Amino acid sequence: MKIFNEMESAVQSYARSFPVVFNRARGSYLFDAEGKAYLDFLAGAGSLNYGHNNPLLKKALLDYIEQDGITHGLDMHTDAKAKFLQTFRDCIMTPRGLDYRMQFTGPTGTNAVEAALKIARKVKGRNNIISFTNGFHGVSLGAVAATGNQHHRGGAGVELSNVTRMPFCGYHGRDADTLKMIDKLLSDPSSGVDLPAAAIVETVQGEGGLNVAEKTWLQGLEKLCRKHDILLIVDDIQAGCGRTGTFFSFEPAGIKPDIVTLSKSLSGFGLPLAVVLLHPELDQWLPGEHNGTFRGNNHAFVTATAALEHYWKDNAFAEEIQAKAQIVTKKFKAISEKHGVTELRLKGRGLMQGLECRNGEIAEKISRAAFERGLIIETAGNRSQVVKCFCPLTIHEKDLNQGLDILEKSIDHVFKQNTLSKVG
Amino acid sequence: MKIFNEMESAVQSYARSFPVVFNRARGSYLFDAEGKAYLDFLAGAGSLNYGHNNPLLKKALLDYIEQDGITHGLDMHTDAKAKFLQTFRDCIMTPRGLDYRMQFTGPTGTNAVEAALKIARKVKGRNNIISFTNGFHGVSLGAVAATGNQHHRGGAGVELSNVTRMPFCGYHGRDADTLKMIDKLLSDPSSGVDLPAAAIVETVQGEGGLNVAEKTWLQGLEKLCRKHDILLIVDDIQAGCGRTGTFFSFEPAGIKPDIVTLSKSLSGFGLPLAVVLLHPELDQWLPGEHNGTFRGNNHAFVTATAALEHYWKDNAFAEEIQAKAQIVTKKFKAISEKHGVTELRLKGRGLMQGLECRNGEIAEKISRAAFERGLIIETAGNRSQVVKCFCPLTIHEKDLNQGLDILEKSIDHVFKQNTLSKVG
Amino acid sequence: MKIFNEMESAVQSYARSFPVVFNRARGSYLFDAEGKAYLDFLAGAGSLNYGHNNPLLKKALLDYIEQDGITHGLDMHTDAKAKFLQTFRDCIMTPRGLDYRMQFTGPTGTNAVEAALKIARKVKGRNNIISFTNGFHGVSLGAVAATGNQHHRGGAGVELSNVTRMPFCGYHGRDADTLKMIDKLLSDPSSGVDLPAAAIVETVQGEGGLNVAEKTWLQGLEKLCRKHDILLIVDDIQAGCGRTGTFFSFEPAGIKPDIVTLSKSLSGFGLPLAVVLLHPELDQWLPGEHNGTFRGNNHAFVTATAALEHYWKDNAFAEEIQAKAQIVTKKFKAISEKHGVTELRLKGRGLMQGLECRNGEIAEKISRAAFERGLIIETAGNRSQVVKCFCPLTIHEKDLNQGLDILEKSIDHVFKQNTLSKVG
Amino acid sequence: MKIFNEMESAVQSYARSFPVVFNRARGSYLFDAEGKAYLDFLAGAGSLNYGHNNPLLKKALLDYIEQDGITHGLDMHTDAKAKFLQTFRDCIMTPRGLDYRMQFTGPTGTNAVEAALKIARKVKGRNNIISFTNGFHGVSLGAVAATGNQHHRGGAGVELSNVTRMPFCGYHGRDADTLKMIDKLLSDPSSGVDLPAAAIVETVQGEGGLNVAEKTWLQGLEKLCRKHDILLIVDDIQAGCGRTGTFFSFEPAGIKPDIVTLSKSLSGFGLPLAVVLLHPELDQWLPGEHNGTFRGNNHAFVTATAALEHYWKDNAFAEEIQAKAQIVTKKFKAISEKHGVTELRLKGRGLMQGLECRNGEIAEKISRAAFERGLIIETAGNRSQVVKCFCPLTIHEKDLNQGLDILEKSIDHVFKQNTLSKVG
Repeated sequence: MKIFNEMESAVQSYARSFPVVFNRARGSYLFDAEGKAYLDFLAGAGSLNYGHNNPLLKKALLDYIEQDGITHGLDMHTDAKAKFLQTFRDCIMTPRGLDYRMQFTGPTGTNAVEAALKIARKVKGRNNIISFTNGFHGVSLGAVAATGNQHHRGGAGVELSNVTRMPFCGYHGRDADTLKMIDKLLSDPSSGVDLPAAAIVETVQGEGGLNVAEKTWLQGLEKLCRKHDILLIVDDIQAGCGRTGTFFSFEPAGIKPDIVTLSKSLSGFGLPLAVVLLHPELDQWLPGEHNGTFRGNNHAFVTATAALEHYWKDNAFAEEIQAKAQIVTKKFKAISEKHGVTELRLKGRGLMQGLECRNGEIAEKISRAAFERGLIIETAGNRSQVVKCFCPLTIHEKDLNQGLDILEKSIDHVFKQNTLSKVG
Repeated sequence: MKIFNEMESAVQSYARSFPVVFNRARGSYLFDAEGKAYLDFLAGAGSLNYGHNNPLLKKALLDYIEQDGITHGLDMHTDAKAKFLQTFRDCIMTPRGLDYRMQFTGPTGTNAVEAALKIARKVKGRNNIISFTNGFHGVSLGAVAATGNQHHRGGAGVELSNVTRMPFCGYHGRDADTLKMIDKLLSDPSSGVDLPAAAIVETVQGEGGLNVAEKTWLQGLEKLCRKHDILLIVDDIQAGCGRTGTFFSFEPAGIKPDIVTLSKSLSGFGLPLAVVLLHPELDQWLPGEHNGTFRGNNHAFVTATAALEHYWKDNAFAEEIQAKAQIVTKKFKAISEKHGVTELRLKGRGLMQGLECRNGEIAEKISRAAFERGLIIETAGNRSQVVKCFCPLTIHEKDLNQGLDILEKSIDHVFKQNTLSKVG
Repeated sequence: MKIFNEMESAVQSYARSFPVVFNRARGSYLFDAEGKAYLDFLAGAGSLNYGHNNPLLKKALLDYIEQDGITHGLDMHTDAKAKFLQTFRDCIMTPRGLDYRMQFTGPTGTNAVEAALKIARKVKGRNNIISFTNGFHGVSLGAVAATGNQHHRGGAGVELSNVTRMPFCGYHGRDADTLKMIDKLLSDPSSGVDLPAAAIVETVQGEGGLNVAEKTWLQGLEKLCRKHDILLIVDDIQAGCGRTGTFFSFEPAGIKPDIVTLSKSLSGFGLPLAVVLLHPELDQWLPGEHNGTFRGNNHAFVTATAALEHYWKDNAFAEEIQAKAQIVTKKFKAISEKHGVTELRLKGRGLMQGLECRNGEIAEKISRAAFERGLIIETAGNRSQVVKCFCPLTIHEKDLNQGLDILEKSIDHVFKQNTLSKVG
Repeated sequence: MKIFNEMESAVQSYARSFPVVFNRARGSYLFDAEGKAYLDFLAGAGSLNYGHNNPLLKKALLDYIEQDGITHGLDMHTDAKAKFLQTFRDCIMTPRGLDYRMQFTGPTGTNAVEAALKIARKVKGRNNIISFTNGFHGVSLGAVAATGNQHHRGGAGVELSNVTRMPFCGYHGRDADTLKMIDKLLSDPSSGVDLPAAAIVETVQGEGGLNVAEKTWLQGLEKLCRKHDILLIVDDIQAGCGRTGTFFSFEPAGIKPDIVTLSKSLSGFGLPLAVVLLHPELDQWLPGEHNGTFRGNNHAFVTATAALEHYWKDNAFAEEIQAKAQIVTKKFKAISEKHGVTELRLKGRGLMQGLECRNGEIAEKISRAAFERGLIIETAGNRSQVVKCFCPLTIHEKDLNQGLDILEKSIDHVFKQNTLSKVG
């Protein structure tokens, strides 16, 4: 630990919640130096949907490295990239009737968002972008302007401009029709809201607290975008790659975004990779106009290809996720009812569910209590008030149930303590 | 090739210059599917300083993966990270009398630049940043504002602000003292140049055309920064990690930047990794204020550690680079003299040298002629007029000489063609 | 007319609606070269509340000029300014229990707005400003960012930033509580709305279409500002100086803004003058920090003093305005009912009332028909759909009734024509 | 005085240097309440080129007001405006072979600058504007971005963007060719300087310290603008209207700017007035796109017309100014030689000359010493180090000489005091 205190920047965050040195991981478990196992309901903040060191992907990667496969290829053509493109088309796009060009950006979500906003602005010749309350899209300067969180916005050190904030589905309460409000603002030539190039939205806001956009809202948003000639960007970096029960999170709504960003679990192995999917007619980039050194992370292509081939060649994995999601829902409902829905409110969908506490302090206590019991689980939301269950999608049912039990016990413990302290 | 045409975005650039599908690489060579070898004087644009699939690093990586080492660790503590921190301190910082905190940013150079500019602005409470003519610092919104290239700036789609452009060493000719000009602008309360938080500089401008900042200029810049209470950021993403003959490119000048950005060859294996080094008193980040999913690319930590241990535990490798650099200089001088220094001007230093042509068209022809002869070499500069020799630092002397010979032949060929076409 | 076509810029606007060369004016009437009289329900867009060449003010001005009173005094002390300050305090501030410092800005409304936003940002150390849908605050760069109208925003030629648009009273329909929405956005640390330095609001939006902020809404806004430590700026440039029936438009609501901007009818004679009123503790300006050549328009001080002394020493004039306003309301209600409230909707309050048509085309026709009948009246609103009655406050009842009759006839004519054309 | 201390904002500046209450003015003299006369070498910061209450202009104005001429006309056609347009064309434009459209902006210099920058950006479709070191163009947000002074820039409270600062004539010393530098930056596609819509320049920088752009520099700047398709804007607000010896300050250089801004002495009487002159093909404004309430200050039209007719119908006045300028030059040279050119350096041209002191403290003392002797004279320059002689152009030679004598005595006094204090 000493070296971390002495040398690593104070910017570290997860390390503060889980102050252990890990040295090995497999499936749904992380292990520390003494071999102690931790059940991982954080899963690399959604980057390890297939678990740690998934053996199928691991084998493909080892074979590739052994044979001196290209590691770093800038944006040059490689076998590994060709296979990834082909597999993505065959397993993901064709079955869903989608037709996108794929842009490899610098291998971080924020870079994909930067590229998506750039091309939208370029194609439409407009500066403004609509983003939503509680949205999170990254912290590089272009992306953080679209991000809602004050903690991250404040870090920018300069003005964040060219983004107009709009209310997310349900933000102003059940009775307020946020889409109608947006429509009014966009239709009124004197509203003061400049016509945007695009709207960027998460269908489930991960960092924002597992806020779910209803299907009808997403459909309405798509219509609104068409009506006003605005591009629709779905930022599927956290909610995509199966996390909500389908490969893309927007599938149940039946919408077809103009642009999609993917990252996190795309490589399947936790390796850095990020892409922008864009309708062919939007692919108006000049060569190298948006570039970066690590756009060709071939190790990631190899594991991504293996993940797609294995998990997404048919619908079985999606169904498996949905079944597990129901287990989570059932458990969370029970917990919620036990302590009262005003104390613990169920949020999210798929394997992107959580329990919203009255405040961040309670959620923090629950996370700490769980960690003491061997479960790694983080909080999210505008006040960190949501305990966010993000197990690997490949988790064994036994492990899932065990994790949920630990969580329940941790919650019970915290509520008991709280009651005692109030009585005391 | 078909899948690339059908699916990959038009943004690709290197793939246009080198239209081959590569599938294997080792040391200084790339191989295509038919087994044809290409000598690599591009080296991942400086990301493969130790060559492709360097066996020392490869072994360390394979062992790590085999043992289910952590792949993706967010910013949590891992054994692999601890070893990297320790090794970086022992091999790099301590011997050079440097004391920095290390911030792991999203694993791309542009993200490190974004973080560096953010923390500088935060600490100093000022918006403005000085960057230099022909500088390149990345293309995410914060970084591209500091980048000079119009091609990349134009892609931003929004205004680029909070950066004041200053002339680089020698920009206004040998007789113009650019530091004196900057000093005047910063000293004059009515110059219209707002006091900046920091100046960000490359000691050798890679993308800008291998423009070299003289030692005295760098020393003067450091003094100027101290005088005006401005932080000095050296962007060593391309010139660092040994490329110029020392680990940091600024070592010969004897300066101590407040902040240093590193990426590209830091992992040693071509894996995405980027860090910001900052003086302890500047490490005023709040937890998670600048975050990102792939800050803990442990595969990269493993190969980076192996690279540092093997190549930087003493001064031998630095001397080896400098010896090779002399070979390049000698050859380039000879070529330059053969065709005339107005036709081909020697630029750069270390293994970051090139030949500047009259225009980008000639440089492009040379690159193409070299590729036909099995040598991969790219162009740089504000008009792509510099043929930029970027071989792996570990290249065998035989391969280096062979590559230089191919380059010479290609140049001879192009100049002969040009002469013929003029005569014709 | 020739010289106008040949030499004046295409930017002219009112001249297009009222294509006559005027050469004399008195009270509520303008006269052209042939002596034809036009009843003026435009009143310099609210700059001639006391009518043209009001004899009381005219005499004071003539006397002052005759005696070689200072015309231009920069910001130096003059007798005329001292008298104006004293009179403003005695007639306006003291009776209303207000305590403001007065800043003389460049003599245009937009300059007063620029100064108000500047000092608010400086005092609070925040960039963001809340402005409202359909608000109009001027067209210089700082002011136009707060202005809603796309026509004016589009003219800026650069990005308009540092302003967050919020819905005005009633904007999202009667049932939507816009203040509650704003409160939510400001309370949520992840809403993406940065805490503003100030909110700038018109109590009746003149250019925006005579939208009225209800008393309770203004009171709620004031509370909201106090709660979030935001300054409240009332832009009373158009609605102030008696236009709504009290000197300040916000008096009926009983609120005390932190900052008030005044211009237009402040000089009383149509002479350029603009001031910012600010709470003493906000007067944190450095000497000359916001300056300008014409801050000391002493002719305007002289007429302003005369106007204040004559019209605002007691409550008689306010009551007179309110009585006239009732005449307008009664007439407009009758007209509205005659043609149907969906065709013509009553808007505004005080002598700032209008009739909203279905669209701008109808309103434009009414304005034209009125002009043919000797009445000058303009349109306002986001689609220029509101016929805006802006007679001098000093208008004789006879003239007021005559103007209203002309307006009624013009409306009848236009509706008849419309009906005919539909039938046809 | 009490009322000023109690009620006027701390932003006042001139009033601090000249703490007297003035109540009358005539020609070159201001008078306080006790009748004490002050010789005015400030002249409304260049707004009173024809002196205070010039009888010719005064008569025209009194007659106009008596006859109920239009005072406030928005942008409507009036007789007074027609006469002004006609006279401006006949007396100013036609004799000089100029062809401009005239845009009446809000009646302040800063508003004219805002309009000029807007239309330049609109016509060229580019954001960036070149402005120069030590330039002053006003303090509204668009104008202050082009202004160099940190005191004013700092007051903006937000980022100032879309302006690139370039070195003024002579800024980097006599040997540095600043135009060549600018040309290099504009020609280099990777300089980081975005192609601007326009360059805005003062031929003599008034607030900046009476820095003179040489004729050849202005000619070179015009060429540079043509070469790069950049509009040339001359901000002649302070240096125009005869101040430098010709109506426009750029006449001696023989250049034809695309856009010219005029204000200050344009009305001739100290009344607020400002215009933008623009080449007919640049007049691409939409109706009302840049508007404002006081664009039709007809009192100012009347006095402006009288001033043009009387002073500019032939060349006599220009010659008179030039003769007076020589008196000033001669005197200033003598003073400068007496105390040493390193102590007092002659600056400026025409009746826009001054003496540059070693620092602002000395200049301030000289101004104060002169005021004690009945002479009002201010300081300018980036450190307020230039004593700036700005007498009315119509000043009697006797008064001019008297003022210069007072100034000399004041300087002698200050230098004597300084010597004594050093000795002491």
